[in-house]
Amino acid sequence: MNECNEQVWSEAFAPASVGNVAVGFDLMGHALVGLGDRARVRRTGARGVQLQSVSGVVSALPLTAAENTAGAALLSMCDGLDLDFGFELELEKGVALGSGMGGSGASAAAAVCAANALLPQPLSIEELFPFALAGEAVATGAACVDNVAPSLAGGLVFVPPGEPRRLVRVSVPPELWCAVARPNMSIETRDTRAALQEPWSLDVIVGQTARLAGVLTGCQTGDFDLLRRSLEDILVEPRRAGLVPGFGEAKRAALGAGALGASLSGSGPTVFAWCEGEESAGEVCEALRGTLGGSDVEAFTSPVDAPGAFLLPQTGRE
Amino acid sequence: MNECNEQVWSEAFAPASVGNVAVGFDLMGHALVGLGDRARVRRTGARGVQLQSVSGVVSALPLTAAENTAGAALLSMCDGLDLDFGFELELEKGVALGSGMGGSGASAAAAVCAANALLPQPLSIEELFPFALAGEAVATGAACVDNVAPSLAGGLVFVPPGEPRRLVRVSVPPELWCAVARPNMSIETRDTRAALQEPWSLDVIVGQTARLAGVLTGCQTGDFDLLRRSLEDILVEPRRAGLVPGFGEAKRAALGAGALGASLSGSGPTVFAWCEGEESAGEVCEALRGTLGGSDVEAFTSPVDAPGAFLLPQTGRE
Repeated sequence: MNECNEQVWSEAFAPASVGNVAVGFDLMGHALVGLGDRARVRRTGARGVQLQSVSGVVSALPLTAAENTAGAALLSMCDGLDLDFGFELELEKGVALGSGMGGSGASAAAAVCAANALLPQPLSIEELFPFALAGEAVATGAACVDNVAPSLAGGLVFVPPGEPRRLVRVSVPPELWCAVARPNMSIETRDTRAALQEPWSLDVIVGQTARLAGVLTGCQTGDFDLLRRSLEDILVEPRRAGLVPGFGEAKRAALGAGALGASLSGSGPTVFAWCEGEESAGEVCEALRGTLGGSDVEAFTSPVDAPGAFLLPQTGRE
Repeated sequence: MNECNEQVWSEAFAPASVGNVAVGFDLMGHALVGLGDRARVRRTGARGVQLQSVSGVVSALPLTAAENTAGAALLSMCDGLDLDFGFELELEKGVALGSGMGGSGASAAAAVCAANALLPQPLSIEELFPFALAGEAVATGAACVDNVAPSLAGGLVFVPPGEPRRLVRVSVPPELWCAVARPNMSIETRDTRAALQEPWSLDVIVGQTARLAGVLTGCQTGDFDLLRRSLEDILVEPRRAGLVPGFGEAKRAALGAGALGASLSGSGPTVFAWCEGEESAGEVCEALRGTLGGSDVEAFTSPVDAPGAFLLPQTGRE
């Protein structure tokens, strides 16, 4: 094992993400540029994980490592790799909790990315994935893959069945952009899952799988007509839309402004829309902002093919 | 309108197909090389469609055009295009009815392909599709797209939502082969649908969509590990497998012989398996034959990227 330098901090950024992407519930998500969480990690001689601080847009989080997604991810890493040292962790939240933009997944992804650089032998993204997933489970009560996967790997990603786990990136055309807008309210993922207890009939399932096939193939071939036909959630959105005041109007505004399709990001309340080109995304973004509450709305645009978690340059602290 | 030459016969072949392909129920199918139906069509001065004969492996079909998938497809074409002439039709069945290999879809596809050559202005595959689909509806009681689409267009095809209808071909690696085996029994599609009335829970839907994403992406990128993880039906097969005696054993034999995955073709009883390479497909084919009844089994192999309906050279008849 390498020399342990407890003075070295490793810092990583992991992006917010759009979960589900209308057609891939609990399966698929994509990263966003600009918004995300930062984790600063250093090794400690003692085993275990100490969460020193949580700052940024959320600060009321528990400082018990096991109850925090980033802390739990590192605990899972310590345990899974049987490390004979521990980690100290500082978390800077850029993604609001309950926003539907994968804040808990971003924290977990940032933490494992930062800690990875301190391991004797750094792991691959796919090897890190189960640890980040274990962290995410603390927040959602289930190991949901659709935010952690894009936060770690970037771009549009899904998780196929089978072991060992794989993250599969779907190639997307560079002109594919996303507009997102978050109204000033929050929704608990746990609550929105209650709306999903009733089973679904075959016709809805067939319709939704047709849309998934259209989105995947449209991305891979750059077929915007196919994306426009297919980017629609007929499975989960009809049961959740009522939980987000103004969603229907926002979606209509996005489509009216030229979006390829629009739906809730994760369980909402953030609304996302895919667009052909950056300029169109800008127009759709303003349309979403206008219907969801104006200046109170966090709204921005991003290419769908956004980077995943990455290490930040050493800042020289300590 | 062009001169109507009632002496000219147009003859087309349309292939059998694997419907559903484990992960795309009522959505996706692929063509097969070798097996298929032939339709011979000529124009008549009188409107309407006369079905003159049905020969081949099935001959007990009604000769009422409206009750035959090929005849109904041509009637739909006459009606949809408001043709001022009619068609005479001879059908040669190569695909057994109730086999799960899309026999009714192949007849409909062959008929519209043959008739298309006799139109004043021939139509595109996508323009022909609704007519073939109307024919297929006679057989199945619903306009199922997953056999007609590959019979017409060839290869691995799905039908996305939206109008006008589109057929989307998924690119597949040339080494992707299929083994099919039909035990000597038949199943009515109508009956097997009764098993699909009960709704599905979200976890099954998420699992099935993960598999669909894996198969589509694995095909498009030539990723055989991804195909092996993903080619599995957890939605419909568990409810239908019991209707096909010996299916479980056949599937295990296919997987044991190296298949990427195996399931029912359409509603069965034909079993299909995807394989990496022609040689592997041959081995899997023999494994299927061995478990499903030996010499009584129609079994063969085909590339997944098989041609769709095509016109046959003029034979000079009449």
